[in-house]
Amino acid sequence: MARYRARIEYDGTAYFGFQRQVAHQPTIQGAIEQALGQIVHDPVTVTGAGRTDSGVHATGQVISFDIEWRHLVENLQRALNANLPADIVVLQLDETTTTFHPRFNAQRRAYAYHIYNTAVRSPLRRHRSWHVSQPLDVALMDQAASCLLGVHDFATFGLPPQGDNTVREVFAAHWQQNEDLLVFFIEANAFLYRMVRSLVGSMKAVGDGRWSIAEFEAALNAADRNRSGMAAPAHGLYLVSVTYGEEQDENIRNKTG
Amino acid sequence: MARYRARIEYDGTAYFGFQRQVAHQPTIQGAIEQALGQIVHDPVTVTGAGRTDSGVHATGQVISFDIEWRHLVENLQRALNANLPADIVVLQLDETTTTFHPRFNAQRRAYAYHIYNTAVRSPLRRHRSWHVSQPLDVALMDQAASCLLGVHDFATFGLPPQGDNTVREVFAAHWQQNEDLLVFFIEANAFLYRMVRSLVGSMKAVGDGRWSIAEFEAALNAADRNRSGMAAPAHGLYLVSVTYGEEQDENIRNKTG
Repeated sequence: MARYRARIEYDGTAYFGFQRQVAHQPTIQGAIEQALGQIVHDPVTVTGAGRTDSGVHATGQVISFDIEWRHLVENLQRALNANLPADIVVLQLDETTTTFHPRFNAQRRAYAYHIYNTAVRSPLRRHRSWHVSQPLDVALMDQAASCLLGVHDFATFGLPPQGDNTVREVFAAHWQQNEDLLVFFIEANAFLYRMVRSLVGSMKAVGDGRWSIAEFEAALNAADRNRSGMAAPAHGLYLVSVTYGEEQDENIRNKTG
Repeated sequence: MARYRARIEYDGTAYFGFQRQVAHQPTIQGAIEQALGQIVHDPVTVTGAGRTDSGVHATGQVISFDIEWRHLVENLQRALNANLPADIVVLQLDETTTTFHPRFNAQRRAYAYHIYNTAVRSPLRRHRSWHVSQPLDVALMDQAASCLLGVHDFATFGLPPQGDNTVREVFAAHWQQNEDLLVFFIEANAFLYRMVRSLVGSMKAVGDGRWSIAEFEAALNAADRNRSGMAAPAHGLYLVSVTYGEEQDENIRNKTG
């Protein structure tokens, strides 16, 4: 028995989020456990770094699982990708230590949020980004994002896991524009439930002129969940990376599949 | 009664191509005719510039239809987009002359084809581009593309509409690379059936080393359908634009919705 760590990409459109449900609704965790079960002919439990919501995508979710595998790790990755549905893939796979935990050992997580800002909606982008038809001032939104840097109580923008506090440290937060696509990037030690979507909805209120930067900052400082703007829809959100301690990152970088 | 011209975008994934079918399979034409019928409470016939295949997308298909409409053209576009399914949209709409025909009056058509060239497949791009895992030499593919410029008999790469010949004039043909995304762009006076997909499949054979440039050029010059490489899959193909006479283009440009 050994522990494996995988970096995975998925299109969250068809799933009820990452985490296995009591009811028989399709989830990312469930689909990966099923593919692994088909390979090793035994039930396998998968642990993920982040519990992404229904409709949320990932380009760098990290998972781990324990199995008995006597062949090359490359063959395990190939077998997994052949057994997984077309909307989930293992980008990278390596053997790790038996103490590795994708959530507890994570030091940083990064998310991206995509808005496309055009008068008319786009069929080709409808499951990948949020369509906003009012013109948005990206420079103002980027100024709002810079208020998030550092250690803050983010209670306005999300709920904590049970028993946890609402203080988080944000290492990077900015908006970038590429033609009509606006991309928000944020990296923090950890996130509250719904935090990125609530932040994006609130910064969108800055971008369309309903909130000033001062109002955004006051909402942040109030640490009051009732002060958040509307949460942005799930389908614009991507879990892009999870970062571990240096030794563990070195390990995952060197074994890129 | 007046004739309207529309530029439309669609995600072709769920459709059996553009053209209405005898059987009750969903088509782009059928979906637009249904939306128009709901608005004017009368059957409406839609004509398209290009009959895209099952799974092929468009960012600039052009259609026309005749209806009685007493309100602003902007209101017709809004009503249409509210009635169309999420995977079809009218980007632009204007009133045109009653003699306008989107196919017969078209002077140039342009297509794009997207390949993503990575070791592992990508769930988020699976309906939008062709995944090729072998490394491709884009410079060689671009060299092959330049052989297509000018007037040629393209019989190797496609079948003509009934009674038509196989000679076409290509105005632009090139490959561009943006990280792991390879984009082929081609503009011609008209295209044969399956022409772009057969060209892409054949240029991919150049890119992965199975064909030399000389072999590609010999296949083109043979004007023999049996000499084509395998057709590339439909889901990487986009109809990007249709160009009309100067006066008509001026008209559609000035009324951008």
